Amino acid sequence: MIDKELERSSDAHWRTALPHVSVDCVVFGFSNSSLNVLILKIKNEKNWILPGGYVFKDESLDDAAKRVLFERSGAERIFLNVFGVFGDINRSENYFAAYKDDLWHKQRFITVGYYALVDQTNVTPIPDSFSESCEWVSINQLPTMVMDHELILKKALKTLREQLSYKPIGYNLMPKTFTMPELQSLYETILGQKLNRGNFYRKIMRYDILIKLDEPRKGGAHKAPHLYRFDEEKYKKALNELSW
Amino acid sequence: MIDKELERSSDAHWRTALPHVSVDCVVFGFSNSSLNVLILKIKNEKNWILPGGYVFKDESLDDAAKRVLFERSGAERIFLNVFGVFGDINRSENYFAAYKDDLWHKQRFITVGYYALVDQTNVTPIPDSFSESCEWVSINQLPTMVMDHELILKKALKTLREQLSYKPIGYNLMPKTFTMPELQSLYETILGQKLNRGNFYRKIMRYDILIKLDEPRKGGAHKAPHLYRFDEEKYKKALNELSW
Repeated sequence: MIDKELERSSDAHWRTALPHVSVDCVVFGFSNSSLNVLILKIKNEKNWILPGGYVFKDESLDDAAKRVLFERSGAERIFLNVFGVFGDINRSENYFAAYKDDLWHKQRFITVGYYALVDQTNVTPIPDSFSESCEWVSINQLPTMVMDHELILKKALKTLREQLSYKPIGYNLMPKTFTMPELQSLYETILGQKLNRGNFYRKIMRYDILIKLDEPRKGGAHKAPHLYRFDEEKYKKALNELSW
Repeated sequence: MIDKELERSSDAHWRTALPHVSVDCVVFGFSNSSLNVLILKIKNEKNWILPGGYVFKDESLDDAAKRVLFERSGAERIFLNVFGVFGDINRSENYFAAYKDDLWHKQRFITVGYYALVDQTNVTPIPDSFSESCEWVSINQLPTMVMDHELILKKALKTLREQLSYKPIGYNLMPKTFTMPELQSLYETILGQKLNRGNFYRKIMRYDILIKLDEPRKGGAHKAPHLYRFDEEKYKKALNELSW
């Protein structure tokens, strides 16, 4: 990062943002049987970073997360949820210790972790002025991350896995129509383990959120697999229902 | 609240705590078929408040939550988990607006919500110097709460209910030994709805966390019900397992 640019941004931050609070976003996407996460490579810095930033004095925390994600990555209209807060001493202070005159970045930040599931095809990653790239990277091939960002990312993944066990997932991640093996592949990728086909079918059907289409997928296979799509209304209902 | 006391605490806060960040604790207890929460009544204030406070410059966020809960309520060695963050504009600023010279309390606070499940018999509520009482109150008979504390409490309850659908609950809430109807009563109280006895039995047994005792409960009933206790090791394992 260029010192001068950092200093300028530091001044602006003191005027406009709340000290000590930041947000970091973990955005998951699914593509070609791979669970990916949106991360940035800062200029002149060898490690990668989550899209993150500060909270303006005149915006809510949730709005800050949305804005930060958009500014850093170009991702818009994304529904973000808090999954954790990271507030250890020296989690951020040490990282910027070298920048002696930059009091903004050197303060202690408690960061709020937001996560989202998105259709990768709807997001065109755009790096901000501090970053040389913004990319989808497989969670199985993560580069070294700055500060505690790997820990933050892993906590988000744990939350996603837990959510999978009591809520349907897939509406934002799957294409409009899909086969049962494709949906199972999403679940297996998130969980990082193979699932029994019969069990998966029974459990998914119990949610009652799928509509079986009359037409199988065209072309290709000898015996074309059935296509499904989500029943939006039932899906939304299932999200709010408890399984007891 | 007495102005002078508030002012003194305000000065101390600026020296020792991080501005803009606070913690609030929602501590659930279970007693006589009632799900209760630990809340405080501030002196000279008609509404109730969650045990909450600020984060010292030299302590982690998690440690702050533990300390605050102990100072406000006397509750010690409680395992707290983050369930949400509340960061709307004016959620706290308006509340202290009347205290014109108290800049600490009038700043914008983003509060981190922590929740815990405890055995009520292990907690002896002790009010701090600002409070006239600290009590277990049934979630069905909550008094009016200050600021957004009712919202915070409801979000904690929602999290608890969600947790119930994919993790066992009860280890910290039930006495050492209990009957199946007693455990079912805990689940029903948290969910706020009756459950089918057979379904409950099957689902609980699937966790494989209970040990059936040889001796039924002594005295009383014509046909004494079986007693159970939790298998600590299996219970801990089940907490970390995913049901897919």
